[in-house]
Amino acid sequence: MDILQKLKQLGEKIYNEFLKNGDPRIEFLTRGNIKTVEYDEEKDIIKLKEKQSVRRFFDVGETRRFTQTLLVAALAKELVESNKHASLREVYYQLKHTIPYINENTFDEQSESDSVIEDLERALRAIREQFGIVADRKGYLYGDITLKDRNRGDEWNCSKLGLGGWGIPSTIEEIDIVDVNADYVLVVEKDAMFERLIEERFPEKNRALLIATKGQPSRGTRRLIRKLRYEVGLPVYVFTDGDPWGFYIYSVIKRGSMNLAMFSEQLATPDAKFIGLTIDDVIKYDLKDVAIQLKPIDVKRVKELMEYPWFKNKEWQRQFNKMLKLNIKAEQDALAKHSLEFVANKYLPEKIEKGEFLP
Amino acid sequence: MDILQKLKQLGEKIYNEFLKNGDPRIEFLTRGNIKTVEYDEEKDIIKLKEKQSVRRFFDVGETRRFTQTLLVAALAKELVESNKHASLREVYYQLKHTIPYINENTFDEQSESDSVIEDLERALRAIREQFGIVADRKGYLYGDITLKDRNRGDEWNCSKLGLGGWGIPSTIEEIDIVDVNADYVLVVEKDAMFERLIEERFPEKNRALLIATKGQPSRGTRRLIRKLRYEVGLPVYVFTDGDPWGFYIYSVIKRGSMNLAMFSEQLATPDAKFIGLTIDDVIKYDLKDVAIQLKPIDVKRVKELMEYPWFKNKEWQRQFNKMLKLNIKAEQDALAKHSLEFVANKYLPEKIEKGEFLP
Repeated sequence: MDILQKLKQLGEKIYNEFLKNGDPRIEFLTRGNIKTVEYDEEKDIIKLKEKQSVRRFFDVGETRRFTQTLLVAALAKELVESNKHASLREVYYQLKHTIPYINENTFDEQSESDSVIEDLERALRAIREQFGIVADRKGYLYGDITLKDRNRGDEWNCSKLGLGGWGIPSTIEEIDIVDVNADYVLVVEKDAMFERLIEERFPEKNRALLIATKGQPSRGTRRLIRKLRYEVGLPVYVFTDGDPWGFYIYSVIKRGSMNLAMFSEQLATPDAKFIGLTIDDVIKYDLKDVAIQLKPIDVKRVKELMEYPWFKNKEWQRQFNKMLKLNIKAEQDALAKHSLEFVANKYLPEKIEKGEFLP
Repeated sequence: MDILQKLKQLGEKIYNEFLKNGDPRIEFLTRGNIKTVEYDEEKDIIKLKEKQSVRRFFDVGETRRFTQTLLVAALAKELVESNKHASLREVYYQLKHTIPYINENTFDEQSESDSVIEDLERALRAIREQFGIVADRKGYLYGDITLKDRNRGDEWNCSKLGLGGWGIPSTIEEIDIVDVNADYVLVVEKDAMFERLIEERFPEKNRALLIATKGQPSRGTRRLIRKLRYEVGLPVYVFTDGDPWGFYIYSVIKRGSMNLAMFSEQLATPDAKFIGLTIDDVIKYDLKDVAIQLKPIDVKRVKELMEYPWFKNKEWQRQFNKMLKLNIKAEQDALAKHSLEFVANKYLPEKIEKGEFLP
């Protein structure tokens, strides 16, 4: 069922319930958190346990939220019909007004509308990009890939944009992949590493597509990575810092996040592989003197990661234990210790050739 | 004198002083801060008062720093000669090592190398981009402009990249402007507004180039704005939130920042104009109900801005006073209150047609 139908169906259902018995309800999937999600080992993603909750208009504690959900749903329908997008912030400003007579605001803070938008996602079982609401953008793409924007008709190749690369927009739902000349996708955490690799002509020499996430990837970037894996069939290697935050960036790309667990199958790339930086690399590539001592917050985070079911395998536990034992972390930029070319000419080709990945 | 000559001259000077009297020195311009900068009213930029300080190798408090400066200068020479770039973080990792016998680290923290890089800028009177050291990237460009990367030979037009636009890299020193079909440059603070305007086809309908800064602009973005103003001759309009932080983004684009005051003439765009959001706009466009109450930190910041000599003119003081009196600020996204198209179809064209800018 397409998203417009889903939205209409929701409206009709509520309208009919009003007419029938005056007791309209909206059914939602439960919000994802450590208790409501589970690790699907076979699919290798984080999933939401199938649990529904109900919101009733005539529950006085829920009336406000119920009304807000309808306001957002109505705007979503407009956006889909007009083929437009609105940012979370624009949605807030579009819908914020004072209701006459009762003199109450529809929304007081943006956090309210943000969270209602999430409700609507969980009611429609559709990501907000499908109904035209988008979050901030982040991330860049570089390499020999030709893309087309279905709405605008633009077509371009991402290997002829200098060091700049293509700015990945907040939604890539309208982007078609026209042509790709590449053997794999390399996702890197930092934009400086992205520029380093372009400067070293790594994508051309290795037939690689490069994606910079700039920290935790935006939803648009995650969707793009997934598309390249499952629509084009390219292997995906993720290259982050060798610290718990870098490891978790990998985890989110690969298996999804807890609060978006319902959408792992739309956002995650389960067979992405981790190319580094591992703690083994720190030893192997003689980076111990440029490694950084763990702070208490790092130690705490490592211990949390160790408990996540999807990090329970031997290889990852080995890295975590080694990290704690040596009491170090290391950044991907630390490879510059050897030379600026080292990562492009030795580290990456060596690991790819030997298939030295973590699962 | 080109940057390679400057670097060689610095090296030769120190070498000769070693031979002559064993007392090598490096002369620096003083660091920019509220005491060492002045407002050049005629040029409308923030400038550094011409003051030098000297660092001596045989001053025991300065030996470490002196040596560090030479290490960075040597790497800078390599970068220039090989036509490469290194990030601040890469420089740190490249140069970090333990000196044999005395068992001392060249650098302990990245903050040390960052600050030595600034020293070198102030010693050579050259921005670090000229000697190949770059900071993080940020910002996007969209519109009918054809660019060429001199190093790589790539040539591309920035109006055929979908909503994505071109990712402005950390340095634009190698970028040539081949062709422009536009009447002005519109710089916007937020990437959601950037996407909004592209979606509304504002650039095409108004012959505008769009730049998103994503908050305070990166140095690469500031250089690009300046280039479009003074190499191409396009007027520059800056569109930020109507709050002290947005006003200061404008100030940095237009007049430079205090700590980089020495480089205002390379980084700033003195005749940029402010297109909004002003506090007058909040009234005129009926945005009071979507405005936000000032927090104590906003009030403090407004009062600071009011004291900066370059904000002392009547028009700006009027905005500041009105902001304090009404006790409100407003975001550029608030214009979505009227409709998603409002900013593209009414607000911007109206202000541009009437020339309603702040200086």
